[in-house]
Amino acid sequence: MFARGRVAAEVDDRAWLQAMLDFEAALARAVAPEDAAEAIAAACVADGFDVAEIGRSAADKGTPVPGLLAALRAKLPEEAAAHVHRGATSQDVVDTAAMLVARRALAPLLEDLSAAADACAALAERFRDAPMAGRTLLQQALPITFGLKAAGWLSGLDEAQLELANVRSNELALQLGGAVGTLASLGDEGPAAVKKMARALELAEPPLPWHTLRTRPLRLACALGTAAGVMAKIALDVELLAQTEVGEVAEGGGEGRGGSSTLPHKRNPVGAVAVSACAARVPGLVSTMLAAMAQEHERAAGAWQAESETLSDLLRLTGSAAAALRELLEGLEPDPERMRANLDATGGLLMTESVVTALTPSLGRAKAQELVEGAARSALDQGRPVRDLLAELPEVSESIGEDGLDRALAPESYLGAAGQLVDRAIRDHRG
Amino acid sequence: MFARGRVAAEVDDRAWLQAMLDFEAALARAVAPEDAAEAIAAACVADGFDVAEIGRSAADKGTPVPGLLAALRAKLPEEAAAHVHRGATSQDVVDTAAMLVARRALAPLLEDLSAAADACAALAERFRDAPMAGRTLLQQALPITFGLKAAGWLSGLDEAQLELANVRSNELALQLGGAVGTLASLGDEGPAAVKKMARALELAEPPLPWHTLRTRPLRLACALGTAAGVMAKIALDVELLAQTEVGEVAEGGGEGRGGSSTLPHKRNPVGAVAVSACAARVPGLVSTMLAAMAQEHERAAGAWQAESETLSDLLRLTGSAAAALRELLEGLEPDPERMRANLDATGGLLMTESVVTALTPSLGRAKAQELVEGAARSALDQGRPVRDLLAELPEVSESIGEDGLDRALAPESYLGAAGQLVDRAIRDHRG
Amino acid sequence: MFARGRVAAEVDDRAWLQAMLDFEAALARAVAPEDAAEAIAAACVADGFDVAEIGRSAADKGTPVPGLLAALRAKLPEEAAAHVHRGATSQDVVDTAAMLVARRALAPLLEDLSAAADACAALAERFRDAPMAGRTLLQQALPITFGLKAAGWLSGLDEAQLELANVRSNELALQLGGAVGTLASLGDEGPAAVKKMARALELAEPPLPWHTLRTRPLRLACALGTAAGVMAKIALDVELLAQTEVGEVAEGGGEGRGGSSTLPHKRNPVGAVAVSACAARVPGLVSTMLAAMAQEHERAAGAWQAESETLSDLLRLTGSAAAALRELLEGLEPDPERMRANLDATGGLLMTESVVTALTPSLGRAKAQELVEGAARSALDQGRPVRDLLAELPEVSESIGEDGLDRALAPESYLGAAGQLVDRAIRDHRG
Amino acid sequence: MFARGRVAAEVDDRAWLQAMLDFEAALARAVAPEDAAEAIAAACVADGFDVAEIGRSAADKGTPVPGLLAALRAKLPEEAAAHVHRGATSQDVVDTAAMLVARRALAPLLEDLSAAADACAALAERFRDAPMAGRTLLQQALPITFGLKAAGWLSGLDEAQLELANVRSNELALQLGGAVGTLASLGDEGPAAVKKMARALELAEPPLPWHTLRTRPLRLACALGTAAGVMAKIALDVELLAQTEVGEVAEGGGEGRGGSSTLPHKRNPVGAVAVSACAARVPGLVSTMLAAMAQEHERAAGAWQAESETLSDLLRLTGSAAAALRELLEGLEPDPERMRANLDATGGLLMTESVVTALTPSLGRAKAQELVEGAARSALDQGRPVRDLLAELPEVSESIGEDGLDRALAPESYLGAAGQLVDRAIRDHRG
Repeated sequence: MFARGRVAAEVDDRAWLQAMLDFEAALARAVAPEDAAEAIAAACVADGFDVAEIGRSAADKGTPVPGLLAALRAKLPEEAAAHVHRGATSQDVVDTAAMLVARRALAPLLEDLSAAADACAALAERFRDAPMAGRTLLQQALPITFGLKAAGWLSGLDEAQLELANVRSNELALQLGGAVGTLASLGDEGPAAVKKMARALELAEPPLPWHTLRTRPLRLACALGTAAGVMAKIALDVELLAQTEVGEVAEGGGEGRGGSSTLPHKRNPVGAVAVSACAARVPGLVSTMLAAMAQEHERAAGAWQAESETLSDLLRLTGSAAAALRELLEGLEPDPERMRANLDATGGLLMTESVVTALTPSLGRAKAQELVEGAARSALDQGRPVRDLLAELPEVSESIGEDGLDRALAPESYLGAAGQLVDRAIRDHRG
Repeated sequence: MFARGRVAAEVDDRAWLQAMLDFEAALARAVAPEDAAEAIAAACVADGFDVAEIGRSAADKGTPVPGLLAALRAKLPEEAAAHVHRGATSQDVVDTAAMLVARRALAPLLEDLSAAADACAALAERFRDAPMAGRTLLQQALPITFGLKAAGWLSGLDEAQLELANVRSNELALQLGGAVGTLASLGDEGPAAVKKMARALELAEPPLPWHTLRTRPLRLACALGTAAGVMAKIALDVELLAQTEVGEVAEGGGEGRGGSSTLPHKRNPVGAVAVSACAARVPGLVSTMLAAMAQEHERAAGAWQAESETLSDLLRLTGSAAAALRELLEGLEPDPERMRANLDATGGLLMTESVVTALTPSLGRAKAQELVEGAARSALDQGRPVRDLLAELPEVSESIGEDGLDRALAPESYLGAAGQLVDRAIRDHRG
Repeated sequence: MFARGRVAAEVDDRAWLQAMLDFEAALARAVAPEDAAEAIAAACVADGFDVAEIGRSAADKGTPVPGLLAALRAKLPEEAAAHVHRGATSQDVVDTAAMLVARRALAPLLEDLSAAADACAALAERFRDAPMAGRTLLQQALPITFGLKAAGWLSGLDEAQLELANVRSNELALQLGGAVGTLASLGDEGPAAVKKMARALELAEPPLPWHTLRTRPLRLACALGTAAGVMAKIALDVELLAQTEVGEVAEGGGEGRGGSSTLPHKRNPVGAVAVSACAARVPGLVSTMLAAMAQEHERAAGAWQAESETLSDLLRLTGSAAAALRELLEGLEPDPERMRANLDATGGLLMTESVVTALTPSLGRAKAQELVEGAARSALDQGRPVRDLLAELPEVSESIGEDGLDRALAPESYLGAAGQLVDRAIRDHRG
Repeated sequence: MFARGRVAAEVDDRAWLQAMLDFEAALARAVAPEDAAEAIAAACVADGFDVAEIGRSAADKGTPVPGLLAALRAKLPEEAAAHVHRGATSQDVVDTAAMLVARRALAPLLEDLSAAADACAALAERFRDAPMAGRTLLQQALPITFGLKAAGWLSGLDEAQLELANVRSNELALQLGGAVGTLASLGDEGPAAVKKMARALELAEPPLPWHTLRTRPLRLACALGTAAGVMAKIALDVELLAQTEVGEVAEGGGEGRGGSSTLPHKRNPVGAVAVSACAARVPGLVSTMLAAMAQEHERAAGAWQAESETLSDLLRLTGSAAAALRELLEGLEPDPERMRANLDATGGLLMTESVVTALTPSLGRAKAQELVEGAARSALDQGRPVRDLLAELPEVSESIGEDGLDRALAPESYLGAAGQLVDRAIRDHRG
């Protein structure tokens, strides 16, 4: 449930190991003699390392870097080994690896978000004019269209996608500062090495080392948090719409999925539940990242160390949610007839505002409102459709007549700008 | 402590009330006949309302809007009163007010952040070359300069400022959707009214109503959270540097501030403590905002309602932190002599890496490292300065001599790119 | 919405001021000469102080205590004034005040929780045998009773109440340690003064000062957090049951409450929404309290300062939720007919497990299951009630007959231990 | 760093699998015929299952239970297989497993906390009378003893241990309710089965199924959170005391641990950093658990699913912290000479309150205070020891003389109740 899709594999131990090795290879190419650099780079392939063993060494030291370096050096001739990791500190490796891991993990995540948005756009287009009850505080209020609901989802996904893509392009930066951020052990070569490595690893070149200036990981965390929140809203809507008593959507996937052999009517919204579960874990993790920004001096005692697993979890959970959401939206089965039936369930009471509007030209707003409210109350008390009560009123028959009344009571007549808003969301998405 | 500076006044009950009235005035001007609109707009001045009374009405209804509207209508001739709030729902008022409140509160907040950054730039410039101990895991590691430390702070503040300014300019949007986001009760006028109001209130025009799509408040919350985190790091550094045993900085302000008549040596870092206290409260609030993104259907049952006070708290706390930080940085009293003394406290042990580097050309890295490590260990064991032990080694006297040794042991010789990095941060800030 | 009921008044500025004065009065009685003590105690009445002025002084100093002491001393003859606050530090005042504020605020909070639990017990008793659909993942699953649902709520409220009452009785302790927790300025009198004050203020006597050992405020915060979570679950159930399409409960209070003149069918669950909104803000605040436990040395630089307002917010929000929940539960209007109708909406599909159980004695479980699943699937495909399809099966008529079938299909026949569980919850509550 | 000690193995996939199997075995023994029950129980051994395969099946279904049941049934003769899992729902398995996992994980966790507390008690005893600077807001304030600091740590650990032990004994309960908590498919056997299983698994028998009443997991989470907070405070103190400039403690373990070959003076507080890092991740996770209490109806759609991994993480992180803390405290190397030297670093200024107290009998408090404050200010201005300035004052020599002055300036003379408090904490711990 929490490792669905393709992001999980991009944040596992092996992915982190490869990213750390990519740092060492790029560093060697930036500061070591060519021969040594090529030897080092050739050795920097995760498959050649024992991930579990390096993990165990991390438990002792509080960082996997020394164990990794020892294993790397052991693969190299002495001459090349002497050039490994020159100028860098452990945190340079881990921070840069985190950025590389993030960049790689964001690729499938963004793809899934895009596909989910495409699916929303298709739903919005197809159900652009399908009326359903709009609900506020979980009570039916006024009609909307399913297209508008899907357009809202679309708009949220597009924003989440844009923000994450922006973070991926602009905020993920190289880390290289040496022990205290002065690049001292690289002599005069430091700034040039930073530039070279950033280019080679396709990461931004930061103005300063950011060992204890954590805005970059935070922007990533916040963008993931916002994306998770957007998805949580959609999943919640789906769960509510899929309720037995509402039945306006069902998740696709046939009997095998969310079904129950003993309760065949049950179509558990398993995709939505997966999204909700992943998203529920995200806000706490973001708060951990924020609280960890208070980092001491040149390198922190605990707060920094708390970041890596938290960031992996954030990527994995948001990624799982995106994979589940995409699948859910691509297979979603809306039921416009049920939507219509639910809309009619209150016998027209949802449409009274529309009738007031229709009567206003002839009766004035105050009088119109008074009449309609009285009819609505009586309808509710007597359990009769409000239409019948309104039709009996001479003021109504004299002003708009039964036809006018039926027009006013039709949900289609009171959708305001819904269609335009749908069109705009689709245009924005595709444009 | 939590309401320092000018932000608190921009998020208090009166400020919210005025922002809600600004919404009603702008709405009237967008959709009501001109006479009514002007009458409404003229009445929309917070001073004419009883804030406490409206607050009480909110407790009953769960929203202050009905009480506010009743009070507003009571001030107007019937004709104008009939046009108040047409087409809007309570949440339109509150969401738009939140955006206006945020825009207004961000003005002094951004000013304080800017001034704090200016103060950092001045410190970075003045102490560009002042050596001090760089510290990792709270242990002295290698020399840095106080300029570099200040440049790091500067760079964090500049990023925080930029992000908040960006949110202020681009993310704060009008809310106008009516009960379910269709703008139905405005007939065909809806979209035009949105455009007009957005322009009048200087807020962005959103593509869709965002009643349950909460990316906008979230971006604001995240940018505030990141700014608070940046400030927390600076405050923590100041607290640590101001420790009795470190004494490298003191907060300004003389005896009255942070001093104690009974303990005259005590210079409590009260400004830094205020920043830390405010910032400590922020991550939890951001997580509340993120968790509240899961909002039901067209308007939410609880999650949305949880946002307003949380957002006010976020603005107030981040604003208080910025005001305290500005004052702190503008008055900060660094003590370069104490920095130098602390740097020398380990008798040169911090500089061994530099000596290795100096010896490497003549002895080779491995031999140089072995010699220096041996001397350092002996120095620690015997309680003697490492310089003396190194000076006694023939390999040292023959290769670099005492002069070379003293040069290598001087912190100034091992600052790497510190100066360049300081210059870059200042240039970026001023450019 | 966030200051409902009687807790808010117990955590406001005046309440804190009185609690701080109570500390000073008790301290004087414990360590000052009797005359001075009585003079001090007599002056320690909040009404005699300017709350706003003391608040302003707090903004400068980071603590209201110096301003309060100055104002208190100004009311006293010099001789008595000299004895004010002897032996105490500011944090002693604030921590003890927090405990007093908590004890006072918990009284109405516990009362509201108790009354809410009583209301649940009454509902559980009255609807002990009223069948309704049990729902999992928001899908109808098997029948339960409304009594069982109410019994679950009851059980949660009883636990929350018990835990908070336990914290109130055992965890709220005096704070008196002086500047660094040694009680040094009280000479030999320290421990005796602690004992005397604890007794006088009806607070626990702690084994050691707890200036930076924050388990006590944390237990309070966690108990409040758990209570809020219990209430959030109940509110969520009410919101879901009150949905237009479900309609199994409505909040009481008539038209004025949660109603809408334009949408007369709408009965907004305003009480439940208020509970949800308050509860949504609690988890983040608890995380703030937990993160603030990392406090430096003898008194902390920021983390401690972050606690007071957070704790006030926690009490106020949990208190508001309890007040709203009590009102909601005392007025709740369940609709057993609608429950029954919803239970029948799937045409008996919910009861298939019961039919399998009924057929098992004659047919064996495997065969029974196969037959019933087939019928259920056909029912769903053909849109016919599963009863009809089952009744047509010879295996059914031969083994249990139509009567047996109808008995098996009656929700009452498949409620398991529901009744016993209800009885137990009520007995536990009342016992 | 995050999987130190013995807790990690108790919360890994295999441990969860075994706990789920333990549920199935106990259920079979409670409700199946004896032969089937023994066959099932015999098969319920984790080693016989493919953990990874069951994990993969969980990803699809959102729960590992169906995959586990299929694998278990495949190991059994048909007759026994038919009795597997009768009466239970997936959540019964997972909730009970969570409680078993927690009980098992808490055993080593409590052991490590106890051992850490023992180590504190030993430190408190050994350094009962060793003076050191008490520090408030990171500034030296008045003398304390290292014994008192250790006693404070001890007291926190004892409370954390007690609370967790209490949760372990009383709050961990069986879950058995069937699909909707009525135990319907067990007919009349339900309540008896609950009782039997609870006894067999040594878990509490809950009054009602607690599928959506989450106080039990929350008490566990809060107790873990509080324990983590207590440990975070100790770790922070150690990090601060171990600073190069303070040097009052060092972590043991010799060169290999926290040392650096290039910076031999550096003794990184790696144990403390590990504790800090683990603890920093806990508050966010607790907030996730609290927010997840809002669970729908009879079984939740997402919130419940978010709990399991979160709880595992909480146990693992708190367990890692406890293991690291125990090791740290057992090996801690306090340096009483350095403590004394730091105490003297302000040239007696810390002791002025003590001198005032000594002079008060002869001069009156006001006069004494005035004299001493003047001397202290001059000492600070002139950079001379305050003793010298005080000794020159005739009022001092006439009243208490140089001997009296030296006595008053000795830290030992102003430790208040420190010794008594230490004794009490040790007695409470051992008693």
